[in-house]
Amino acid sequence: MNAFYTGFRTFTLVAAAALWMGCGPQGGGGASDDLKPAMTGSIAAVMQERGLTEADALAAVRTYTPTGGRDPYLLFASGGHAGHVVVIGVPSMRILKYIGVFTPEPWQGYGYGDETTALIASGDRYGKSLTWADTHHPALSETKGDYDGEFLFINDKANARIAVIRLSDYTTSQIVTSNLIESDHGSTFVTPNTEYVIEGSQYPAPLGGGYAPLEEYNDNYRGAVIFWKFDRASGKIVPEQSWAMELPPYMQDLADAGKLVSDGWIFMNSFNTERATGGTLEGEPPLESGASQNDMDYLHIIDWRKAEAVANSGRTNTIVGMRVIPLDVTIEEGLLHFVGEPKSPHGVDVTPDGREMVISGKLDTHGTVYSFEKIKKLIESKTYAGKDPYGVPILPFEESIRGQVEIGLGPLHTQFDGDGNAYTSVFIESKVAKWSLADLKLIEKIPVHYNVGHIATVEGDTVSPDGTYLVSMNKWAIDRFNNVGPLLPQNFQLIGIDGPQMQLLYDLPIPLGEPHYAQIIKADKIDSVEIYTPIGYNPVLHATDPLTVTAGKERIEREGDEVHVYMTAVRSHFTPDTIRVKEGDTVHLHVTNVEQAKDATHGFAIGAHNVNLSLEPGEHANVTFVAYRAGVYPFYCTEFCSALHLEMAGYLLVEPR
Amino acid sequence: MNAFYTGFRTFTLVAAAALWMGCGPQGGGGASDDLKPAMTGSIAAVMQERGLTEADALAAVRTYTPTGGRDPYLLFASGGHAGHVVVIGVPSMRILKYIGVFTPEPWQGYGYGDETTALIASGDRYGKSLTWADTHHPALSETKGDYDGEFLFINDKANARIAVIRLSDYTTSQIVTSNLIESDHGSTFVTPNTEYVIEGSQYPAPLGGGYAPLEEYNDNYRGAVIFWKFDRASGKIVPEQSWAMELPPYMQDLADAGKLVSDGWIFMNSFNTERATGGTLEGEPPLESGASQNDMDYLHIIDWRKAEAVANSGRTNTIVGMRVIPLDVTIEEGLLHFVGEPKSPHGVDVTPDGREMVISGKLDTHGTVYSFEKIKKLIESKTYAGKDPYGVPILPFEESIRGQVEIGLGPLHTQFDGDGNAYTSVFIESKVAKWSLADLKLIEKIPVHYNVGHIATVEGDTVSPDGTYLVSMNKWAIDRFNNVGPLLPQNFQLIGIDGPQMQLLYDLPIPLGEPHYAQIIKADKIDSVEIYTPIGYNPVLHATDPLTVTAGKERIEREGDEVHVYMTAVRSHFTPDTIRVKEGDTVHLHVTNVEQAKDATHGFAIGAHNVNLSLEPGEHANVTFVAYRAGVYPFYCTEFCSALHLEMAGYLLVEPR
Repeated sequence: MNAFYTGFRTFTLVAAAALWMGCGPQGGGGASDDLKPAMTGSIAAVMQERGLTEADALAAVRTYTPTGGRDPYLLFASGGHAGHVVVIGVPSMRILKYIGVFTPEPWQGYGYGDETTALIASGDRYGKSLTWADTHHPALSETKGDYDGEFLFINDKANARIAVIRLSDYTTSQIVTSNLIESDHGSTFVTPNTEYVIEGSQYPAPLGGGYAPLEEYNDNYRGAVIFWKFDRASGKIVPEQSWAMELPPYMQDLADAGKLVSDGWIFMNSFNTERATGGTLEGEPPLESGASQNDMDYLHIIDWRKAEAVANSGRTNTIVGMRVIPLDVTIEEGLLHFVGEPKSPHGVDVTPDGREMVISGKLDTHGTVYSFEKIKKLIESKTYAGKDPYGVPILPFEESIRGQVEIGLGPLHTQFDGDGNAYTSVFIESKVAKWSLADLKLIEKIPVHYNVGHIATVEGDTVSPDGTYLVSMNKWAIDRFNNVGPLLPQNFQLIGIDGPQMQLLYDLPIPLGEPHYAQIIKADKIDSVEIYTPIGYNPVLHATDPLTVTAGKERIEREGDEVHVYMTAVRSHFTPDTIRVKEGDTVHLHVTNVEQAKDATHGFAIGAHNVNLSLEPGEHANVTFVAYRAGVYPFYCTEFCSALHLEMAGYLLVEPR
Repeated sequence: MNAFYTGFRTFTLVAAAALWMGCGPQGGGGASDDLKPAMTGSIAAVMQERGLTEADALAAVRTYTPTGGRDPYLLFASGGHAGHVVVIGVPSMRILKYIGVFTPEPWQGYGYGDETTALIASGDRYGKSLTWADTHHPALSETKGDYDGEFLFINDKANARIAVIRLSDYTTSQIVTSNLIESDHGSTFVTPNTEYVIEGSQYPAPLGGGYAPLEEYNDNYRGAVIFWKFDRASGKIVPEQSWAMELPPYMQDLADAGKLVSDGWIFMNSFNTERATGGTLEGEPPLESGASQNDMDYLHIIDWRKAEAVANSGRTNTIVGMRVIPLDVTIEEGLLHFVGEPKSPHGVDVTPDGREMVISGKLDTHGTVYSFEKIKKLIESKTYAGKDPYGVPILPFEESIRGQVEIGLGPLHTQFDGDGNAYTSVFIESKVAKWSLADLKLIEKIPVHYNVGHIATVEGDTVSPDGTYLVSMNKWAIDRFNNVGPLLPQNFQLIGIDGPQMQLLYDLPIPLGEPHYAQIIKADKIDSVEIYTPIGYNPVLHATDPLTVTAGKERIEREGDEVHVYMTAVRSHFTPDTIRVKEGDTVHLHVTNVEQAKDATHGFAIGAHNVNLSLEPGEHANVTFVAYRAGVYPFYCTEFCSALHLEMAGYLLVEPR
């Protein structure tokens, strides 16, 4: 407990006493009777005028960040089917950046220049251009189980893809996809030293993209978990060193990596162990019903270090280029065990000490705390309660858990602080519950508005959570904000958790995207460049571009119908500013922003040609286009860069053939 | 002046006095010596811990909006080359929505379904697909010179396009483009009853998209201003009723419509009356230099009611389908006059009473106040100082103005309050200046951070500005926020202007896009629907979709290789949830969200097919795709809609041929 909690009321009593004793000036009204005497100062006057309570005013000063101020924490959230990542300062709750990932985003020039277009296209599947994604779970890279601030990974649930974002400049640097699975959800999660980025499938399908009738679901549809090998030195996932495990056709869901004592293991939950397949127009119950018949689904317990050894031993089948450990080998080698988990679980969360795993079922009222030590002993002693239809051994539930905590209706996702407390979102009640890990007792619930999905505490997925703030990622906003049409923003609610009681501090509307999951990192762990240096850096190449243009060396070179334009940008002109080509020419534009002043970004756009670049200080970009039609097309700088920004322009002159 | 300004200091003195007299509890420290005695309450403790000043705390309570609170004002900003529109609550400065306009945006499903894809494609030029835009100037629809909250218009500078957004549901409903001009900037602006949406060209080019060498600039390049006729009943621009005026090849810039006494006129400024064309690689000075030689550019004064009559009289040339009044007719009919405007002007702003126009030159230190009455008399008496090279009469500068106000270095854009004050952004000084319209005296300047472009006051472009807040749209942020890489957010600074001194209240980073201009409207003027009713509304059609699906009437119909799927979505299943087609089939999906609960949005996505819809309550959407590859593809709801949202899924089964 700190001084924050001695109460605003103290101030009002002091001021009231002063007034009563004739110490202060008279005047002002009051928001409530007992506050009236205090409403003399300007803060009190504003509170009255705006209808703010004492708690509101305290929340205001706890979150307000004056000009030039910095946030101690940064939240990284997925953008859902907007296909990007959102960066938010905590506690100011100001959105600082949307990072383009799978969806083209022209402000960043992302998906418009040659390299970023190729980067997005590298995520195409079966040659089909994919221009959006459903990003779900961002994972910060870790060292020894702590966020290290170097990389961020993010999945695409819809198309089973993974992207790597470099936090050294907040840009996407890689997109990988295998055709092994058709959708993912248990991703991305990382092992404690980011050896692997985990991608678990969601909706089963024939592995490798083949066709099988739905009637062959049990036999020919499968789940899988892919272990994407990450190479920190190059900052890239190495597909050739990655491998996967075949899983039964349940709907695998979220995952978490063991840490400390449980390092070397991953835990992944699942639903629809009923193997229902819907059929609403064919006389069958919908999946929501068919998948909710069993009281228990299966927590998947995977010994990934042992699996890695098996994969490297060659006991794999190669499917669409991916080494896959078949289910029979998995069972034979003891790589996978199941244990029951209560109804409709969503997520499994390993405690900071790595000793326990917390799981909640949305149709159950409990949080269940599994003991890694107990589970390991059961595995070692081969104490099974049975096997699933595919032969995977099932551990006895009661012997696997330490206990359960009664949370409420629809518990969903659990995070932790550094003081031994757990926080669980409660979807149906629209609350966040705080409970004690030590004695499994509910401590407190705070209402949130409304339908909370995931929650994030500061460094809450690490071995050392910070325990200052919690963000409740509410799926519905309903009556929280001004009406801006039938598509509502999501609502991120900031909750202070460093006092004796949880305090609702701020409602942040998310104006674009439907974030699903977030992680919060201490801001000073990230060391991003402010400009690109030396001049000529290409973020996608992560190197100086070989076609970088030096001031004074600008030129236009023609080779047949191919025209290469080597251009520089500097406040406030392009060189060259006149480009003369012939109709049908292919134009290769190589532009270097030769600025080295922070924030001296230039844009480059040509009308009617869909050409659009964003050139940060020192950045080089290339773009290729066909001069498809004779005419006169202005080009100009799209970033307001100086008083003479409007004059930073030129012409593309396309002469008729 | 109101109670806000009696000063936080009053409170501290009261509390200090109380303490000194032994009235209150002891304890706490102090942010500064004279505050120490007051630092007992929790607000004071937080202020000390977070290093907040008195002004900071006051700004905090002036802007903080507690959960469920509403903003009295909404700001609509362009998104620059991100191609969208941003909606921000004032004073909370929370971004409430990004509205997709020219750029596809998957969260909204915008540019993914059949109708929204066609809508974006309707803005293609010369058959070239354009997937981004450079949005610059949003204009709210007006009635009698006041914002009426019905529509918003926005331009695309890069490709000379205009979009119409319905504020009844915050969606884009129309995109128009003519091939008359190649870029625009003096757009969008509306006449006082939204009779017309004005689009002025920026960079001259041969009218109608033809080719002419740059050497023929003076003779064959032209500017133009298009008067797009708006039909309020249908909510659409009517291209056939629209017309344009040919202008000399200067770079026409921002515009404003006259109002009240000056209703019937528009004013448009310009730069590069030198007709410089750059040539940085060809031994010529850059445009920034060539266009800055003259001391004066030309304010364009257009009598649009007279021009409308001329256009309707048939004295036009039809160029690429647009009726254009030729420059010689314009001159002969007296539709256009020039008057000098000081160096590098950007924008012309008509005062709320319609009597005067304020112009600033970025390379001049003054604001110049033009008198409409004087100008009208000079026009009536044909008192000219000369003619431009094309024969356009030039009015004498000194006789056209009431006077000038010394503002500072780089004055740029002027807005107004309701008390006779003007506010001008000062780009080079990074300040906002407040000055008196009555006596042309500078009152006060407040620093902003940094490089302010446009500013917006509440209802500042209307006949009745509100005068409560001003937003400074700063182009650079430099050191204001956490480092998030070399591409920085813009910085919108909220300034309180309802007190005797301007107060900086809030810094809002803009995380996506580079807004150029904004308008702020009273929120209660906009009446948006919360759900679509009756069920089956298609926002692009602005009507019930003829293919709407009723619950119980879901079906799959095959016609040769064309498969029509009539589907409903409701928590938490699709009907049908199994779609069986053959490889090569064209699938037409017709989906109705039959929900009528607010916020009960469903998404619909199919993996590997780039299919993605957002279905607000009651909305119907259609999407067509080819089942291009045999396989098994999950589809699912992408909006977290219920506890069993993950189970809202099904399969597209593509059988091999």
